[in-house]
Amino acid sequence: MAKKAKSARPKARLPKGLRDVGAEELRGVDAMVGAIGRVSETYGFEPLETPAFEYSDALGKFLPDADRPNAGVFSLEDDDGQWMSLRYDLTAPLARYVAANYDALTKPFRRYQTGVVWRNEKPGPGRYREFRQFDADTVGTASVAADAELCMLAADALEEIGIGAGDYVIRLNNRKLLDAVLQRAGIDPLGDGEQAKRLTVLRAIDKLERLGTQGVELLLGPGRKDASGDFTKGAGLAPDQIELIMGFVNAGSDGRGKTLAALAPLVEQSETGREGLEELGQMDGLLSAAGFASERVVIDPAIVRGLDYYTGPVFEAELTFETAGEDGARTQFGSVGGGGRYDGLVERFKGVKVPATGYSFGVSRLYAALSELGRAGASAVLAPVIVLVMDREHLAVYQRFAMELRAAGLRAEMYLGESGMRAQMKYADKRGAPCVVIQGEEERARGEVTIKDLVEGTRLSGEIEDNTEWREGGRAQIAVPEAQLVEAVREVLAGQRN
Amino acid sequence: MAKKAKSARPKARLPKGLRDVGAEELRGVDAMVGAIGRVSETYGFEPLETPAFEYSDALGKFLPDADRPNAGVFSLEDDDGQWMSLRYDLTAPLARYVAANYDALTKPFRRYQTGVVWRNEKPGPGRYREFRQFDADTVGTASVAADAELCMLAADALEEIGIGAGDYVIRLNNRKLLDAVLQRAGIDPLGDGEQAKRLTVLRAIDKLERLGTQGVELLLGPGRKDASGDFTKGAGLAPDQIELIMGFVNAGSDGRGKTLAALAPLVEQSETGREGLEELGQMDGLLSAAGFASERVVIDPAIVRGLDYYTGPVFEAELTFETAGEDGARTQFGSVGGGGRYDGLVERFKGVKVPATGYSFGVSRLYAALSELGRAGASAVLAPVIVLVMDREHLAVYQRFAMELRAAGLRAEMYLGESGMRAQMKYADKRGAPCVVIQGEEERARGEVTIKDLVEGTRLSGEIEDNTEWREGGRAQIAVPEAQLVEAVREVLAGQRN
Repeated sequence: MAKKAKSARPKARLPKGLRDVGAEELRGVDAMVGAIGRVSETYGFEPLETPAFEYSDALGKFLPDADRPNAGVFSLEDDDGQWMSLRYDLTAPLARYVAANYDALTKPFRRYQTGVVWRNEKPGPGRYREFRQFDADTVGTASVAADAELCMLAADALEEIGIGAGDYVIRLNNRKLLDAVLQRAGIDPLGDGEQAKRLTVLRAIDKLERLGTQGVELLLGPGRKDASGDFTKGAGLAPDQIELIMGFVNAGSDGRGKTLAALAPLVEQSETGREGLEELGQMDGLLSAAGFASERVVIDPAIVRGLDYYTGPVFEAELTFETAGEDGARTQFGSVGGGGRYDGLVERFKGVKVPATGYSFGVSRLYAALSELGRAGASAVLAPVIVLVMDREHLAVYQRFAMELRAAGLRAEMYLGESGMRAQMKYADKRGAPCVVIQGEEERARGEVTIKDLVEGTRLSGEIEDNTEWREGGRAQIAVPEAQLVEAVREVLAGQRN
Repeated sequence: MAKKAKSARPKARLPKGLRDVGAEELRGVDAMVGAIGRVSETYGFEPLETPAFEYSDALGKFLPDADRPNAGVFSLEDDDGQWMSLRYDLTAPLARYVAANYDALTKPFRRYQTGVVWRNEKPGPGRYREFRQFDADTVGTASVAADAELCMLAADALEEIGIGAGDYVIRLNNRKLLDAVLQRAGIDPLGDGEQAKRLTVLRAIDKLERLGTQGVELLLGPGRKDASGDFTKGAGLAPDQIELIMGFVNAGSDGRGKTLAALAPLVEQSETGREGLEELGQMDGLLSAAGFASERVVIDPAIVRGLDYYTGPVFEAELTFETAGEDGARTQFGSVGGGGRYDGLVERFKGVKVPATGYSFGVSRLYAALSELGRAGASAVLAPVIVLVMDREHLAVYQRFAMELRAAGLRAEMYLGESGMRAQMKYADKRGAPCVVIQGEEERARGEVTIKDLVEGTRLSGEIEDNTEWREGGRAQIAVPEAQLVEAVREVLAGQRN
């Protein structure tokens, strides 16, 4: 037989910006997403799953980072020459789904969806090219009661997963107010060639929290050089235009009513501005009636949201507790999601307006917040009991012990490796096993099993000076007749909970 | 303002072989997968999630349909020129994960994973290009106790989700027996140029259930023309070779012991054959000791499994109840998953053998089986109570009713559309609402709400002749003081459960 040429071995590595998720995080994320799902269900939202791929033209390009319109999406050509893209969010697929099933859907249609999305962007610390989102959307109603409902849902969901009142705030604004201010400043949001300027202005405002008033003023005007020397081109507005806009952005106040009163004189000159005020006023009323006071939902004129397609109310969930920032200084944890009204997205397909509004949580970021707060929910899943294999001829007996424990609802493994007692105890230790089940030759002769309590054992080993004392110590292990195995293991586990 | 050129609207459609999954199926599948996950946890398996993408060379090409070695996978080029592929199963990513984290892993390593996989293949009825799998694998032990454990896990999982003993069977074989028979027939599985012939033979055997003995004999010999006239090339074996192989394939019998006794004289001439017999004998012993008799796990020499990389025990879960086949005739439901030992897969990366064995369920197919059996678990999620909006000026009041119901743990929606009473009742009906909450002007004046029981109402409307009687009928609706809303809705729902 000819000897095969040695082929090069592939390297076991992942593409950049991708990662594996282990048991602890997976269980924590599943529990968290499950809780948000249950809250969404109580609001009448129904689950939906769309595939990872869509036709590229159906998805469209609605990424926040529109500076790079050709990047951001993973695309590939189908065998019939049509281009497909991996979804970059859960909103664009929903628009396609609604358009495709419009007549059959009961409207207004409330759906929630959780799933992974993909962004073909430069990864960074905590910034991946695959990550999970949780979205709730209401399609087919222009009523801002739907927007108010989403704000309530977001607040309820945060509290349900353990982020209490005081640790978060929902910030609310309306694109119509922003448009009214821009109009007043002489920027016609619908005018030819003014679209780009409008976006530059909105993105500048969006950076208020990070750059402060002075930084935003530079971005609205001549442009800004950052600490690294990189220059960002400005919107080129005149000082009076900038003053008008900054006056609006900084007009927020304590309480939604006061903020609305402060904003009114700045925007009520136009129909658009009056509409926006009216909508926020309605939402304020609904929120107040439902018990969502200004501590939980504030009106903040600086909230923009990065997406171009928003047409009305926009909102953002911000976690207000402090955390260590990139430079080590304490900063607020910041945004974990947001959303807004997008009345034009289904129109792309249908040619008629289909009003819609939605909310999206960044799941990984939210889980990171829970972990920071120490509320990521210590997993309720206990590590398994390990049945040691003392004598390979009696595998079937050890396996029966494991079966009996499982039948009683406990997690239990028979050790499957080839190693001896010492390595098996090390395995049990690494697995975090609460106890091991042992039956050597002598125990078998007596029809007994020994249960060694690894938690109590570890505790005792700290107290006991004499090694012999520990090995012989009765407290960390008990021998019982085989028939009492399950009962005895349960007692050991119960003892550990105390 | 210049009028924009009318741009072509994208069509709202999905690429072929992809589909949306609605609320009912999603809830059913989640419940089913959750149950299989819980069973896996009791066996000590831990969850893992790997990303959708891997480097193409890391994934390799281990698809069952190796006739088209360049098809089957969705691939795309990363911006640094490296090729990535979407995972086509959950085993290849596990091999990469284990190789990348080998030293840190506690071995033997038991992991389970559920997720979507993608196949770039021709879709057909019930055959999609994106579908969900559930896998459980044990890495780092050569002991066939691990293989036996996976058979037990598969059986326990099927029973846990509602497929009872008698409706399924786990079929077990060993590739070593197949290789021994091939060697005896003069086909050296490791010989140069014989690899292709070996695969053709294995694939022919794999079709026994579908094509019968005669069909397989043709595929082993000169080739076979199917009903449509398409010709499949055969392996070109001589009659005595075919006889030898078919004698082995058909040597299955009642009971694992009898089958092993019948197979022994056919394969025990070679070391490989004796190893295979010894392994199946060990598994038989472990299965019997754990109470998994031949009704649940049989040894079937015709089981091959399509994948090339199996090196030892292989197994398949078959549902034995009858269903309507493609041509309308009753046939057994068939395979819902399977697996086997693959000792070489991690070796690709590491250069050293890392023994492993695994099991995979096809989730959609398994859910289809549950649906057929009527055991897909009628969703425990009740449709929401709908609070009708009789007077838009009092939205906040209606919303408060919905909030109160939700705070009591009930699903409740305020109607968000713009339509009148009639359309709202139709909406409630379409949503499957158990009841609606109504407060018109008169009720408001009295501080009351009316709860209309839609289930009882529908029942009564069948009994009542007089339309007026129904409208006025007291039995299907009750009026209560606002403060008793939650209590009254609970009573209505309780009445519907009786």
